[in-house]
Amino acid sequence: MLRTHTCGELNPKNIGEKVTLCGWMQKSRDLGGMTFIDLRDRYGITQLVFNMQTNAGLCEKARKLGREFVISVKGTVEERSNKNLKMPTGEIEIIVDKFDVLNRSKLPPFTIEDNTDGGEELRMKYRYLDLRRNPLRKNMELRHKMTSETRNYLDLQNFIEIETPYLIKSTPEGARDFVVPSRMNQGEFYALPQSPQTFKQLLMIAGYDRYYQLVKCFRDEDLRADRQPEFTQIDCEMSFVTQDDILNTFEGLIKHLFEKVKNINVEDFPIISYDEAMKYYGTDKPDIRFEMKFVELNNLAKGSGFKVFDDAELIVGICAEACGNYSRKQLDKLTDFVRKPQIGAKGLVYVKYNEDGSLKSSVDKFFDQKALKTWAEAFNANPGDLLLILSGETGHIRKALCELRLEMGNRLELRDKNKFRPLWVVDFPLLEWDEENSRFHAMHHPFTSPKAEDIQLLNSEPGKVRANAYDLVINGVEIGGGSIRIFNKELQKKMFKALGFSEEQAQEQFGFLMNAFEYGAPPHGGIALGFDRLVALFGGSDSIRDFIAFPKNNSGRDVMIDSPSTISKEQLDELKLRIVKE
Amino acid sequence: MLRTHTCGELNPKNIGEKVTLCGWMQKSRDLGGMTFIDLRDRYGITQLVFNMQTNAGLCEKARKLGREFVISVKGTVEERSNKNLKMPTGEIEIIVDKFDVLNRSKLPPFTIEDNTDGGEELRMKYRYLDLRRNPLRKNMELRHKMTSETRNYLDLQNFIEIETPYLIKSTPEGARDFVVPSRMNQGEFYALPQSPQTFKQLLMIAGYDRYYQLVKCFRDEDLRADRQPEFTQIDCEMSFVTQDDILNTFEGLIKHLFEKVKNINVEDFPIISYDEAMKYYGTDKPDIRFEMKFVELNNLAKGSGFKVFDDAELIVGICAEACGNYSRKQLDKLTDFVRKPQIGAKGLVYVKYNEDGSLKSSVDKFFDQKALKTWAEAFNANPGDLLLILSGETGHIRKALCELRLEMGNRLELRDKNKFRPLWVVDFPLLEWDEENSRFHAMHHPFTSPKAEDIQLLNSEPGKVRANAYDLVINGVEIGGGSIRIFNKELQKKMFKALGFSEEQAQEQFGFLMNAFEYGAPPHGGIALGFDRLVALFGGSDSIRDFIAFPKNNSGRDVMIDSPSTISKEQLDELKLRIVKE
Repeated sequence: MLRTHTCGELNPKNIGEKVTLCGWMQKSRDLGGMTFIDLRDRYGITQLVFNMQTNAGLCEKARKLGREFVISVKGTVEERSNKNLKMPTGEIEIIVDKFDVLNRSKLPPFTIEDNTDGGEELRMKYRYLDLRRNPLRKNMELRHKMTSETRNYLDLQNFIEIETPYLIKSTPEGARDFVVPSRMNQGEFYALPQSPQTFKQLLMIAGYDRYYQLVKCFRDEDLRADRQPEFTQIDCEMSFVTQDDILNTFEGLIKHLFEKVKNINVEDFPIISYDEAMKYYGTDKPDIRFEMKFVELNNLAKGSGFKVFDDAELIVGICAEACGNYSRKQLDKLTDFVRKPQIGAKGLVYVKYNEDGSLKSSVDKFFDQKALKTWAEAFNANPGDLLLILSGETGHIRKALCELRLEMGNRLELRDKNKFRPLWVVDFPLLEWDEENSRFHAMHHPFTSPKAEDIQLLNSEPGKVRANAYDLVINGVEIGGGSIRIFNKELQKKMFKALGFSEEQAQEQFGFLMNAFEYGAPPHGGIALGFDRLVALFGGSDSIRDFIAFPKNNSGRDVMIDSPSTISKEQLDELKLRIVKE
Repeated sequence: MLRTHTCGELNPKNIGEKVTLCGWMQKSRDLGGMTFIDLRDRYGITQLVFNMQTNAGLCEKARKLGREFVISVKGTVEERSNKNLKMPTGEIEIIVDKFDVLNRSKLPPFTIEDNTDGGEELRMKYRYLDLRRNPLRKNMELRHKMTSETRNYLDLQNFIEIETPYLIKSTPEGARDFVVPSRMNQGEFYALPQSPQTFKQLLMIAGYDRYYQLVKCFRDEDLRADRQPEFTQIDCEMSFVTQDDILNTFEGLIKHLFEKVKNINVEDFPIISYDEAMKYYGTDKPDIRFEMKFVELNNLAKGSGFKVFDDAELIVGICAEACGNYSRKQLDKLTDFVRKPQIGAKGLVYVKYNEDGSLKSSVDKFFDQKALKTWAEAFNANPGDLLLILSGETGHIRKALCELRLEMGNRLELRDKNKFRPLWVVDFPLLEWDEENSRFHAMHHPFTSPKAEDIQLLNSEPGKVRANAYDLVINGVEIGGGSIRIFNKELQKKMFKALGFSEEQAQEQFGFLMNAFEYGAPPHGGIALGFDRLVALFGGSDSIRDFIAFPKNNSGRDVMIDSPSTISKEQLDELKLRIVKE
C-alpha cells in the first residue's frame, strides 16, 4: 500500500507514530508561520501541519498545492493543541516531513463541499467530482449498507439469489421495452427486462421455493424527475405461501432495514384495503404519518339548496386541527391551491369551528349553525379546527382532496422526514378499464390471481373483481408491490379472456410460461421493491438521482460519457439495420 | 404457509407430530398393501406412506398421482422400520391422513433424476424442469454461496459495492458491443457494457478507494461452448496500491472462497512471469497441478545432422515419469495426437530411459547413448521415464507441447478435479502485434500501465515493454486478470500514440476518462474475475452453462423463451429503424 493509514483513523493512540497518508487536498490555510492542510480520502479528513520556521522549503512547497491535488505525505502524529472533537481525527495532526504530488488537478468546476456552488447540469457532467462530496459519498455508503442488510435478511430466511438473464424477449404488454438487435440472428431482437417477472415464476415452477435478486430493470418510458430508464429492484418470489406470509416476510425485511441501517424500530404495518385507502385518503399510497382522514358528507350536506353540493357525486372534506384561526388570505391561498390545473377542483368550502363554539363557513347562506354542527361532529372536530370541503365527481375530487391533505400536512409540519410509517394496501382491483383501448388491463400483471370469492364475477362484472395484490407504501411513497400468482392453467385462460386476449395471442406472448404451468406449478406469489426509491427514502430525499452513482438525465442521457451516441456504419451494417431519416 | 415443514427437515425428534408438507411427487412404489411416495422440494425428500388396510380409499387415490404432481399432505411423523441413514430425513416417514393435489403435471419430457435421459436441446427448452434436478439445484446453491462469501470478504476489506450503468456508450476498441437504440434520442444508441472498466476507474477518481461489483457484462462475440453473450464478473478496483497489494487482496479472496465453500486450504499462490510461463508451460495459463515442465534442448541437440532439429528455432520436450514402458502403439497414438490439425506438430521424437539405464530413441541414427544421456540429465529423468520432444518455430511448438503436456497429464491422471493449484502470471507484454491491422493492440486494455523501467522502450521497441498486468490462473483456466492503471495524462498520451491513435481519436473515444484524469486521479489498479467460470471450477465442471440458471445456446438463443425474436413494426417505427433485407 502507498499509505500506512487512511485519513479517517488516526487518533491519540497513534501519537508519536511515523505514518504515510495519501489523499486529496481539501483545504489549505496559511496562518502566519504555519500552513494547515486538510487531507481527504473516503474515510475522513486528517490535518497536516507545515511550519515555516522548522522547514521553510517544505512549507513553501505545500503552499503551492492546489485544491484536489493528490498527495502522499510522510510525517509524525502529534496531539493537536486546538482539538476538534466533532471529527474522529480531530485530536491529532500530522507534522509533515516529506510529501510527493502523486497527481495534479485542474481547478474543479465547482467546490467539493457539502453545499456546492455547482449547478445540476455541471455536476452531472463532472459526476466523478460530484461523487467526491460528502453527501453523495454517504448516499453510496447507505446504498451499499442497505444491499448488504437486504441480502443478510433474505439469506437467513432461506432465500436464494439467482441471476436471471438480461437479454430476454420483448412482450407488447405493459411499458415499452428497450430492445437489442441480434447480430447472430439477423432481423431479430432481444429485449432488456422490465422485471424478471416470468423468470422468477419459472424458478418457482423449477422448485426453488424462495428466490431473490437485486437486479437492474429497464423501461423505455418518457422520464419524469424521479424516474430512470434503468433502475434497481429487490425482486422476490415464494412458493407454498399465502398473502399473509409474503406480507410478514417483507414487513420483516423493512423492519430489519430500519433497525440495522437507521436504528429505528418501526411499528407493525397497518393493512388497509384499496377501497379504504381511496375513501379515507383519496389515494392508494396514503401518507399515514398524520391522520386527517377524509370524511364524507353526502348524507349531511345534500338537499339544502346549495347547487354545487346537490349536484355533486361526492362531498368530502378533511379537518385541519387548530387552523380555525386561518385568515382570509390563508384561506384564499388554499382555494388557489385546489384550483391549480394539476389539482383541478372548482372551489373550496371551509368551516371554521370557532373557539367560542360557533361555526363560520363560506356557505353560511345555505347551512345554519345546526347543520354545520352536524358536520363538525362527523369530523370529530374541536373548537379551533378548520374543515376543508370539496365536492364533485368521486375519483376526481378524492384526488384533489388528497393533494390538499398533503399540502396541509406540509403546512402543519406533520410530514417529518425522520418519521417512517409504512403500511400495506391490499385488495386492489384485478382489472382496470382502459378508456383508450376500450378494454380491461391487468392492474398489476396478467398473472395476478383474483380473490377466490370474486372469481364468479370475472365474466359478469370484471371491474369488481379484487386481486390478491398488495402494495407497500411508506410516507406516501409506493415502495413496491406484488401479488399471489395464478398457477392454474384454466384460471389463467379465464384471465386472458377477461383481458381480451385470444387463445392464440395468449399462447404467442406467454406460451413458454403457460406451458410451464402444465408441469406441476406450485402455488406462489411475490413482490418487487423499488430499491432506488427505498434508499432515497432512507436518505431523507425525494430524488433518487442522488442515490445512483451514474444516473441519466431527464432525456435519458448520460451527459458525462455523452451517451447515447451514434454508432459506426460498420456496426449498423453488421446488424443489418438502417436509420430512417425523417 | 401452506406447510408446517419442508421436505428436508423432519427427523426422529419430530416423531408423533402432525405435519403438513408440500412438494412434488418424485417417485412412487407400490409394495403389496403399501404405497410409498418420495415427496420432493428444494430442501430434500420425505417418504410418505399410504396403507391399503387402514385407508384403502386414500391409498388408491395416491396410486393415481403422476410424476411431478404438486401435492399438499397432512400426516403424522413416524419412525421408519427400514432406515436410510444417507438421507437427512431417512429415519422417519409420514403416515398420511389426507392429501390434496395442488396442481397436476403432464409427463415431463425427461426424467427429473441426477442422471437424466434428456438431451441437451430438450433440457434447455424445458429449463424449468432441468433446474429441478439435484445437480443443477446444487450448482445454483453453490453459486449463491459463492456470491455471499465474495461479498462477505470484500465488505470486510472495506470495499464498497457500487452499481454502474448498463446503458453506456459504444467504443470501437476491443470486442463487439451489443447496442440499444434510443427512442428519445433518435438515431443514437446506448451500448451494453463489456465491463464497467471506465466507470470503476472514474470511481477511483471520485475517491471511492475500494470498489467492487458482481455485475453482468455483455459481448457480442461468436460463441464457443464455454462462452455466453452475457456473463457475470467480480469486478474490483483499488486506489493507492501496488501490484502486490492487489495480488494479496485477491489471493485472500480466492483462499477465503476455497475455505468457506469447499473447506479446502489452498497453498500460497506461486507468482511466475509471462516469459517463464511460456518457457516452461508453453501457455500463459499453465495447469500446475503437475510438474512436467518444458526443457529446452537447443544447446544439446543441434548440430548432429538431424535436419529437423538443426533447422528448428526451438527443440523442447517434457519428461513423462514412469512411461518408459510405453508400447509402439501408445507412442504412435501420441504422435497422431501432436499431428492433429489443431495441434499441428509435424512429428514427435521420443527417448525411452530404460530401467537398465540404456536409452532408446526414435532418433538413434543421429544421437548416440552419450548424447541421449545428456538429454536425460537435462530433464532430470530417471530410469523408467519417457522424454517427448517437439521442434519447430518457437510460438507454434510451445503451443503444441503445451497440449501434449496436458494430454499426458490426463493420461497419467495428474489433473485431479479435487485438487486446486492457483497461481499468478505477471509481467505480461503491454502490447501485442496485430498482424491483420499492422498495428499494436493493448494486450489488456489501453489504460494498463507499462513497467516504469520499460517506459523508455515505448517508442523504440514497443513490443518489448512489459505491463503491470497480471492474470489469476487455476488448474489451467484463466479465472481473471487486471492491471495497475495509467493515471497520468502524459503517459496516457504516449500509450495512445504507441497504439496508433491520433490525439483526436483518443479524445473522441476516451475523452471523458482523459478529462477526468486531469482532476486529481489517484494511482489505482484492479482486477476482474470471471464468476461463471470460477463457480464452474468450484463445481468441478468445464461447462459454465450448468452454473447459469437460464443460459443461451451456441447461437445466442434462449430456446425456452424463444429469444431473440422479431419485434413489431410499431416498435421499429418508434425507434426509426428499418431492417435491411439481403
